Amino acid sequence: MKVKLTITYDGTNFCGWQVQPRKRTVQGEIQKALKNLTKEEIKIVGSGRTDSGVHAEGQVAEFTTSSKVPAEKFAPALNAMLPSDVKILKSQKAKDSFCAIKDAKKKTYTYRFYKSQTELPLKERFAVRLEKDLDVTSIKECAKLLEGEHDFKAFSSSGGSAKTSVRTIYKIAIKNTKQELCFSITGNGFLYNMVRIIVGTLIKVGEKKATIKDVEKMLSTKNRELGGRTLPAKGLTLTKVQYDK
Amino acid sequence: MKVKLTITYDGTNFCGWQVQPRKRTVQGEIQKALKNLTKEEIKIVGSGRTDSGVHAEGQVAEFTTSSKVPAEKFAPALNAMLPSDVKILKSQKAKDSFCAIKDAKKKTYTYRFYKSQTELPLKERFAVRLEKDLDVTSIKECAKLLEGEHDFKAFSSSGGSAKTSVRTIYKIAIKNTKQELCFSITGNGFLYNMVRIIVGTLIKVGEKKATIKDVEKMLSTKNRELGGRTLPAKGLTLTKVQYDK
Repeated sequence: MKVKLTITYDGTNFCGWQVQPRKRTVQGEIQKALKNLTKEEIKIVGSGRTDSGVHAEGQVAEFTTSSKVPAEKFAPALNAMLPSDVKILKSQKAKDSFCAIKDAKKKTYTYRFYKSQTELPLKERFAVRLEKDLDVTSIKECAKLLEGEHDFKAFSSSGGSAKTSVRTIYKIAIKNTKQELCFSITGNGFLYNMVRIIVGTLIKVGEKKATIKDVEKMLSTKNRELGGRTLPAKGLTLTKVQYDK
Repeated sequence: MKVKLTITYDGTNFCGWQVQPRKRTVQGEIQKALKNLTKEEIKIVGSGRTDSGVHAEGQVAEFTTSSKVPAEKFAPALNAMLPSDVKILKSQKAKDSFCAIKDAKKKTYTYRFYKSQTELPLKERFAVRLEKDLDVTSIKECAKLLEGEHDFKAFSSSGGSAKTSVRTIYKIAIKNTKQELCFSITGNGFLYNMVRIIVGTLIKVGEKKATIKDVEKMLSTKNRELGGRTLPAKGLTLTKVQYDK
């Protein structure tokens, strides 16, 4: 039986999603709980890795088991064994052919900032502080430019394993209030560090340290150096992974 | 010179406000930073203690110093030395007669719940989970009943040091959305565990395990046993302490 899991985690105390020797990872914790539950050595396949410190509200993974536990009972059974910083929102039976990586049609990541002159301990865990007012009109204009199909090579870090750097961004939604600035980016897939570099570049535009022309040039020349910095992991959350029904 | 501090902290890893031997407390951390800064042994006076695990967005404290540091510079200087879970929002010169305890006119505490069938790691730090739908109409009716001046003895735990259990609640504001239920209670002062017991009792009413008549009886007979449980500290935040200008 193939089982699909929808997973949420506070990434603060994880060395990311993927199993690594002697490190605490989300995949590792779930596989440990699955072993306790089924006595099988199960390897789960996530829709994609998230880096150390990145959070998730709706990561998706799948695994194959010969356990007699009904698919929908895996969520409560695993939650009873999992630590408090990772929980299964839902477990359901999937087609045997279901692949969490290849079948993913859209992913949404959210990047959160809070606005304050002082560091706020109640916000710091899941957001990054913005001290200065930004030019949000330019940020929005620039975000529009990035929507659509482009070669995002300039918006990625080296070290990724992707064959092509062409991706489609369906939407960059921006919520700007007195207290926070929040980016939700939906695409068909993302390169290594792509969300953190896109948002870092939009912030640079908002600070008037880069122009929309620079961003156009990043797309055409694929030059990473024109962009903003790779923002910290803690502001980033994998919000949603979508599949065909 | 007397200096007034406005303070925010994530209470998770503190044994409350008040200095205790060999325990990590908010007052202790601030006094340690003040000693580093001024080389004086300074005792700060908070508007009130908060218990272990309780958070603050606007705790107030004061201290007397002969330091030459300008009052408003204490905030950035202390923040550079304080750990990341406690920060000074503001430091300002106060009258020599200013007392953070006696001069406090109003305090506001907020208690937060999130609504979910599953534990959510991204919410658990600052809120308590509600699994079932509650009768919020009854909760609101009951909250109205508690506003005003009453003897709140039935809504307190033993161990407090207050001389009288008569307090005035100016307002219980309730925000109820699909994702959260949030209580903000403003009063002239609070007994030991009073907010956590009031909200625990309102939840019991919302679960239809207690009636508005029971709550009336709590006020008249001062019988703690009719009330709800004392809710966990992590949902509670000291939001604001108000003084006369």
